[in-house]
Amino acid sequence: MKKAKAAIFTGSGIPMSLQEIDVPELVKGQVLVRNRYTTLCRSDLNTFSGKRTEKTPTILGHEIVGTIAKLADGSPQTDTAGKELRTDDRITWAIYSSNPKSTLAKRGIPQKAPDLFKYGHEAIRGNKTLHGGLAQFTLLQPNTPILKLNDDIPDSVAALINCSVSTVAGALRLAGPLAGKNVVVSGVGMLGLVACGMAQTAGAKSVTAMDINEHRLKKAKVFGASHFFNPGVDSEESLLRTFGRPNPFDVVLEFSGAASAMENTLKLLSIGGSAIWVGATFPQRDIQLDAEYLIRKLLTIKGLHNYNLEDFKTAVAFVSEHHSTYPFSSLVEHYGTLDKVNEAFKYGIDSNAFRVGIDPAK
Amino acid sequence: MKKAKAAIFTGSGIPMSLQEIDVPELVKGQVLVRNRYTTLCRSDLNTFSGKRTEKTPTILGHEIVGTIAKLADGSPQTDTAGKELRTDDRITWAIYSSNPKSTLAKRGIPQKAPDLFKYGHEAIRGNKTLHGGLAQFTLLQPNTPILKLNDDIPDSVAALINCSVSTVAGALRLAGPLAGKNVVVSGVGMLGLVACGMAQTAGAKSVTAMDINEHRLKKAKVFGASHFFNPGVDSEESLLRTFGRPNPFDVVLEFSGAASAMENTLKLLSIGGSAIWVGATFPQRDIQLDAEYLIRKLLTIKGLHNYNLEDFKTAVAFVSEHHSTYPFSSLVEHYGTLDKVNEAFKYGIDSNAFRVGIDPAK
Repeated sequence: MKKAKAAIFTGSGIPMSLQEIDVPELVKGQVLVRNRYTTLCRSDLNTFSGKRTEKTPTILGHEIVGTIAKLADGSPQTDTAGKELRTDDRITWAIYSSNPKSTLAKRGIPQKAPDLFKYGHEAIRGNKTLHGGLAQFTLLQPNTPILKLNDDIPDSVAALINCSVSTVAGALRLAGPLAGKNVVVSGVGMLGLVACGMAQTAGAKSVTAMDINEHRLKKAKVFGASHFFNPGVDSEESLLRTFGRPNPFDVVLEFSGAASAMENTLKLLSIGGSAIWVGATFPQRDIQLDAEYLIRKLLTIKGLHNYNLEDFKTAVAFVSEHHSTYPFSSLVEHYGTLDKVNEAFKYGIDSNAFRVGIDPAK
Repeated sequence: MKKAKAAIFTGSGIPMSLQEIDVPELVKGQVLVRNRYTTLCRSDLNTFSGKRTEKTPTILGHEIVGTIAKLADGSPQTDTAGKELRTDDRITWAIYSSNPKSTLAKRGIPQKAPDLFKYGHEAIRGNKTLHGGLAQFTLLQPNTPILKLNDDIPDSVAALINCSVSTVAGALRLAGPLAGKNVVVSGVGMLGLVACGMAQTAGAKSVTAMDINEHRLKKAKVFGASHFFNPGVDSEESLLRTFGRPNPFDVVLEFSGAASAMENTLKLLSIGGSAIWVGATFPQRDIQLDAEYLIRKLLTIKGLHNYNLEDFKTAVAFVSEHHSTYPFSSLVEHYGTLDKVNEAFKYGIDSNAFRVGIDPAK
């Protein structure tokens, strides 16, 4: 039986161990993928550091790109866009599989359907294995959205599609049309930078990058941000000077996850404005919300976790068109192969790098 | 010069005084209305009791119906639906006038446009007078949406249109299509009861009335509620028994304005659910909001204050069709004429009546 090298995570504080595990015989509808590149998402780092918990033992990593190694009987003949699937095709896939006929999937929230299977987030149980990016192979389950990728997209950028870019696409969907709008992107890490580029591409009147990290704000400039706000340094008067009013924004795209950022950006919204909250996927203090203010200003707050099929398609289309418009590849610091995985996580946590990349093939 | 009797409000704790004030000469575009009936909105009672403040001196009352006494030169030839306007026509009008070409009006929020004029909420300044329902006449400003009313709608019910019913229509617009949805109406006072009826009419799968007042819950039954929940008495297990899960609702329509109700009903929303907050138009403690919960459940919160032109039209259409489907007239306790206005306010505050009605014509 074929073997695959995999980094097994058993709990925070315990180094991942590299193990040779069996590649199961494919059952009906599955697709075996040879992983080509994996980037470490912030939630991977949070799991490693103990800021969030995950079922164990598991294989972390869900920002992955790979090539088709084997198509089982009954596996999809075509990708989600209708293109024929063949061995060696380079593909990206959604971080989940779920029944498209479930009520939630029909309502546009397949990522929360009852039978959800989530790559990089499942416990290893017997033959249910190889579902994370920190291994040589990923075994795709039936009902996993798959899209073939153009050859000119670098692997390190393609890996970002199925978490970072798709989630941001979901945030923009919830925000509605951005043409002519003043948009603030709160937290310009990986997702925030993608959001700057997508908002610019969508025709936003202005894109204000907001972060307490000057390095990140500088980076936002090459990702389409037109204005820059450091809440640790800049006063609201500077917004007044720039925009002519102290609450100039029509849309807040919130990726920092900081309670204070969520609270403060609400107050920067103009009447009828919307805040899309994405970043706060970990436990923290409650947000203090003035309901009368929300009501009199007719504000909207929408929470988003993961993304749906439409967002995934939007993400692939965006990266296909703009992977060189914005310097995505500069965001991924290549660390090495699977045997360096523990060091890579530590580096990701300590360095505050946008993304750390791993070559899981070797 | 013609005179009009009016109840002048100068501040909380000071009885309103009945005065004969001049009816100004009409200027271009104005419409003089002879008031036929006025109902006291909760915000009128809150102004009287000091729970909220208002510019003074003023004439309170904005839930009004009346007949056209005089059309000035340049006043609209037709109502908002295109029907010809003539003297003695019975009409309802939006609680505001504002420039329809303003940015906010174009975005569907005319009730917050910069030049907003709001009936029952303006200070009396010289000729700027007669803008409230507790007087014999109301002077409508240009850009006030006006709709003619069918004869079969009772005055006491027609008076409810331009605040209660229109605001609820706005809440339903923000909630989106309700067909097949489980809806909870939090707070079944006047607005909540209208919401029960509108949600049933919109094809909701279930309409759960929620209130700590058993009398109100009973009333909700004849306004289309299918289920009843008293958070002071009923446990969440009863929701589990009834709906098969403890968080069964797709939509919360929140009219109680109670912080605890806003917090607790969020937890009753299913994944992807929406809460529309309308009631909390007065200062109170902050809402405690778990951002991670909002995000992982993909919840939406939308604040609504007042309503737009579409909502006003929806409200008139709803009342025209359903004023006898649901016993609206039973909600208005007629108190008397203008000379009883102080007693009427005290009764409204003490009795917790759904609405107290005043005949301002005499």
